[in-house]
Amino acid sequence: MASPLDVAVIGLGSMGLGMALSLVRAGHRVAGCDIAEPGRAALAAAGGHAAATPAEAARGASAALVVVVNAAQTEAVLFGPEGAAATLAPGALIVSSATMAPADARRFAARAEEAGFHYLDAPISGGAAKAEAGALTVMASGSPAAFEAARPLLSAIAATVHELGGEAGIGASFKIVNQLLAGVHIAAACEAMVFAKSLGLDLDRVFEVISQSAGTSWMFENRVPHILEGDYRPKSAVSIFTKDLGIVSDIGRSGSFPLPIAASALQLFVATAAAGMARDDDASVARLYARIAGLDLPGETPPGTETR
Amino acid sequence: MASPLDVAVIGLGSMGLGMALSLVRAGHRVAGCDIAEPGRAALAAAGGHAAATPAEAARGASAALVVVVNAAQTEAVLFGPEGAAATLAPGALIVSSATMAPADARRFAARAEEAGFHYLDAPISGGAAKAEAGALTVMASGSPAAFEAARPLLSAIAATVHELGGEAGIGASFKIVNQLLAGVHIAAACEAMVFAKSLGLDLDRVFEVISQSAGTSWMFENRVPHILEGDYRPKSAVSIFTKDLGIVSDIGRSGSFPLPIAASALQLFVATAAAGMARDDDASVARLYARIAGLDLPGETPPGTETR
Repeated sequence: MASPLDVAVIGLGSMGLGMALSLVRAGHRVAGCDIAEPGRAALAAAGGHAAATPAEAARGASAALVVVVNAAQTEAVLFGPEGAAATLAPGALIVSSATMAPADARRFAARAEEAGFHYLDAPISGGAAKAEAGALTVMASGSPAAFEAARPLLSAIAATVHELGGEAGIGASFKIVNQLLAGVHIAAACEAMVFAKSLGLDLDRVFEVISQSAGTSWMFENRVPHILEGDYRPKSAVSIFTKDLGIVSDIGRSGSFPLPIAASALQLFVATAAAGMARDDDASVARLYARIAGLDLPGETPPGTETR
Repeated sequence: MASPLDVAVIGLGSMGLGMALSLVRAGHRVAGCDIAEPGRAALAAAGGHAAATPAEAARGASAALVVVVNAAQTEAVLFGPEGAAATLAPGALIVSSATMAPADARRFAARAEEAGFHYLDAPISGGAAKAEAGALTVMASGSPAAFEAARPLLSAIAATVHELGGEAGIGASFKIVNQLLAGVHIAAACEAMVFAKSLGLDLDRVFEVISQSAGTSWMFENRVPHILEGDYRPKSAVSIFTKDLGIVSDIGRSGSFPLPIAASALQLFVATAAAGMARDDDASVARLYARIAGLDLPGETPPGTETR
């Protein structure tokens, strides 16, 4: 393996923690921080250092991976008070993985480069299990120098790295397009499954047949089992898609590009969140349809008899 | 093979003709009819009999496959003047493959069974190439006797037969759920690809990356190449989805089931048809977005300079 590096991981949620643990396993010296205790404790238990602030995690490090929720948090943990940019080693690498508008990615890259850092616009996909396994997909863009510096880190966290271009913003754009489709496909899968229920169909059979037909999608095959099992513990929460389709919607509006399908899907995630399911699995859109239509889904109390 | 049967194929469009040719290849005696000449000529050239009416095609036949556009045509070619029901052999089998509302399928089955026929509710999917190869997917429901009678025919036309239940309406319901998803996924693929264009992305690279990501769908992988090649010759036309999502929408409304995502997709197909592309490939929804947003797609004249 390459020589061990001092790496900060800012944000130890399910994705950031998995990435931090993958870096520890690859032999790097990892310091991480998060507002929440569980991520810090898990990193410390695995042999990493749990820091109190981004600045502490990044002190003297040659790279910082930023795996927070959005652009505002990314800006705060990099450039705010106690931010990482103040303490990173000169010429260090910043890898930014939150989903954000391309314009934000370009803005942060410019600011980082002005301060003498390399910046890789590197949104990720794959979910918590793949993060932990070091098998994420990374949609990355940035300067050749940023890619060069990132190589030992990316090899520890990712199974696939798409190198998408020489400047920040391109990675963010690819991720946004992916999220548009992913969000629409989840909402459509939920709409179709509860519609199938309204037609009196056997949902297990619907899953089996549609999975083999032209109506299938990656999300249909991944999320419908949650509906069939009545398991809405959040593998990925509704709130991720109110956020990501919100970004999609903002970009479309600011760029005068109409997105009627994405807008419908966004409203369904918003309605599902409004109905109290923001932190539940994103397949909960199916529960929203079932409640509206007065239908029973596996593991769900029939509407009208629930006590929640 | 089983003993040769006298089979009528009513409707010799791209799907019906492919099924008729597959039946000829399997050794059956096939008589077919269509309002349009090309299908009749192709069947005659392959050794089948080109009939002038459904009644003529079905005279004395032990089975009729109905492969027309919708429920109204199915009703007309079976039970209207010169309809097949008047001339089929007693106890014959009717295989109905048009996409239609489950209630229509149940109504036609009842009427056919009252007249002493077996009825298989058997929508198909797979497209023209698979129809010609005898490799369709059939989503079928009906009595055990109907399935039994259909077996030698299904084995000639289909690679996969989903046996979905003992009565008509179930096959139609599965097909409708599939078409809801298929239509939404086509519209979403078009929305996403032209949105990607608006972000300045390389569309070939978008196709490559998204096809490997959580945002992919069967339709994304199948239809986006049409956009990349600028080839809108109709493999499946926009008008198929104004029709099929129209049926979905009617069922939802009559059953008080809300379908906001399908409704958005339907409106996009309607808008694409209204813009003059009803008979073009259903990926033409991408051209609608491109024209609205003033963007250039492969093979497409930039808006404002087109002469069409």
